[in-house]
Amino acid sequence: MTHSIPETPTAAPALVLDGRRLQLEIEAEIRAEVENRRAAGRKVPHLAAVLVGHDGGSETYVRNKVLACERVGFDSTLLRFADDITEAELLAAVQRLNHDPAIDGFLVQLPLPRHISAQKVTEAIRAEKDVDGFHPINLGRMVAGIPALLPATPSGILVLLRRYGISTRGKHCVVVGRSTIVGSPVSILLARNAEPGNCTVTICHSATQHLADITRQADILIAAIGRPEFITADMVKPGAVVIDVGTTRVADMTKKSGYALKGDVHFAGVAPLASAITPVPGGVGPMTITSLLLNTLQAATR
Amino acid sequence: MTHSIPETPTAAPALVLDGRRLQLEIEAEIRAEVENRRAAGRKVPHLAAVLVGHDGGSETYVRNKVLACERVGFDSTLLRFADDITEAELLAAVQRLNHDPAIDGFLVQLPLPRHISAQKVTEAIRAEKDVDGFHPINLGRMVAGIPALLPATPSGILVLLRRYGISTRGKHCVVVGRSTIVGSPVSILLARNAEPGNCTVTICHSATQHLADITRQADILIAAIGRPEFITADMVKPGAVVIDVGTTRVADMTKKSGYALKGDVHFAGVAPLASAITPVPGGVGPMTITSLLLNTLQAATR
Repeated sequence: MTHSIPETPTAAPALVLDGRRLQLEIEAEIRAEVENRRAAGRKVPHLAAVLVGHDGGSETYVRNKVLACERVGFDSTLLRFADDITEAELLAAVQRLNHDPAIDGFLVQLPLPRHISAQKVTEAIRAEKDVDGFHPINLGRMVAGIPALLPATPSGILVLLRRYGISTRGKHCVVVGRSTIVGSPVSILLARNAEPGNCTVTICHSATQHLADITRQADILIAAIGRPEFITADMVKPGAVVIDVGTTRVADMTKKSGYALKGDVHFAGVAPLASAITPVPGGVGPMTITSLLLNTLQAATR
Repeated sequence: MTHSIPETPTAAPALVLDGRRLQLEIEAEIRAEVENRRAAGRKVPHLAAVLVGHDGGSETYVRNKVLACERVGFDSTLLRFADDITEAELLAAVQRLNHDPAIDGFLVQLPLPRHISAQKVTEAIRAEKDVDGFHPINLGRMVAGIPALLPATPSGILVLLRRYGISTRGKHCVVVGRSTIVGSPVSILLARNAEPGNCTVTICHSATQHLADITRQADILIAAIGRPEFITADMVKPGAVVIDVGTTRVADMTKKSGYALKGDVHFAGVAPLASAITPVPGGVGPMTITSLLLNTLQAATR
């Protein structure tokens, strides 16, 4: 899929970057690759997910990951542990997955109960099976420009930009938010000498002064702060590409679930200004799952 | 040492950030710490440096590191290998250093001969002894905000800012250059929620458009491109703090060595505008060596 987007500011309605459609498209490609592998007598990729306790959000995330594996023909394993599992027991489970040749990649769903060090667990995962891309060695290889498993959300943003044919070279990208899993890595990836990449990148956060003066310089604006509708029209340059990473649950009694997902961008106000924009839900979210599948395929192929 | 620097643009001459004087000051502190350790019957820190071949620059860098160890009372070991050493032999030497309890930290001087993979050698160094801070796991821990051995030059810049009492919180820092050893890591460190840190950080490079428009926004401007006198007065906002990481050898027959070291900043033009500026030589360079000593002390203390 390649869409040309206007290079100059425009009064035309923004192109809505449809993560769901792109997800279906890429999943079809992965499914074909899995069929090729199977036909060639090669191993089918196998993802394992570890879930501790019964956090509602985590249950949903892990279920969506397992369902995605099924759609593309990957094998999957879901390992569930009660929330009183000890750190030592969880680390032992990680070691079994590290050494199990059947498992190509795995993730331990965060957050973990407070008595378990997420850092210790993350660092225990073998880097080559770390399909979440959270292991420091994968983050460090990313900084050093060495091939690595990239964190799923930043990597999904790159896939979205690439598939929509949005040129990044020489553009000014402003990232709002400096989290370890989104803001920091996406700022590193878009500054690299690569395609997508080669952006001038500015990273902003809670200590930034005159934020709107900076976001208004963005050709590509990435919002990853977790504050619903924080980015308003006055903060956006006409013609900008706007990527909304936020997904905050906001109470909404009109929904069966009792909540609605809100992005970090005030969509109704910003969309008329932007040249392209991701919706929430249905923008970056599906790309994150897609990146996890692509990482698993990469881990199975090494 | 704390110097107050003006918060607002000024016509007063720039404060010259004297890396050599700060180096002496910090070395005296380290020497005192080594004496304390010795008096308490604890091990004296021991740095090893590995030098392959006879590159002139590398010889000088390694000699300066060994001399710095002597000044602060560290033990040091210099391991020299001919430039036809095999990769396997060099990796075996790294493993011996990894396992030698006498050695607290070590570095392999880069560049290496072309038949040896610098990446493989760097990744073979035990992260806890990686006093250059180049191992991906240390870079990744830095991204994740986990305690790590930080790369020496970026870390030296932080020491310089801290010791001169230059506040960074909320300032706009523009980094020109995206190298793995300076530009990228210093941009990450100054954006972190730490002190020094909490800057809004923009990273620029060869693909950046309208560079001067961006550098003129900098409250703190860090030049790390390796192009002599590239940053000129028209690129600098009055009152900016200017950090010059460049050290390019330029032929100069008036010098006994036949060359002069030139920074990336046109000092004579920029200094009258800046509130503070590092000279070359004598600014960031000495801080890099100091950071290596501080990293070695940290490695010995863990």
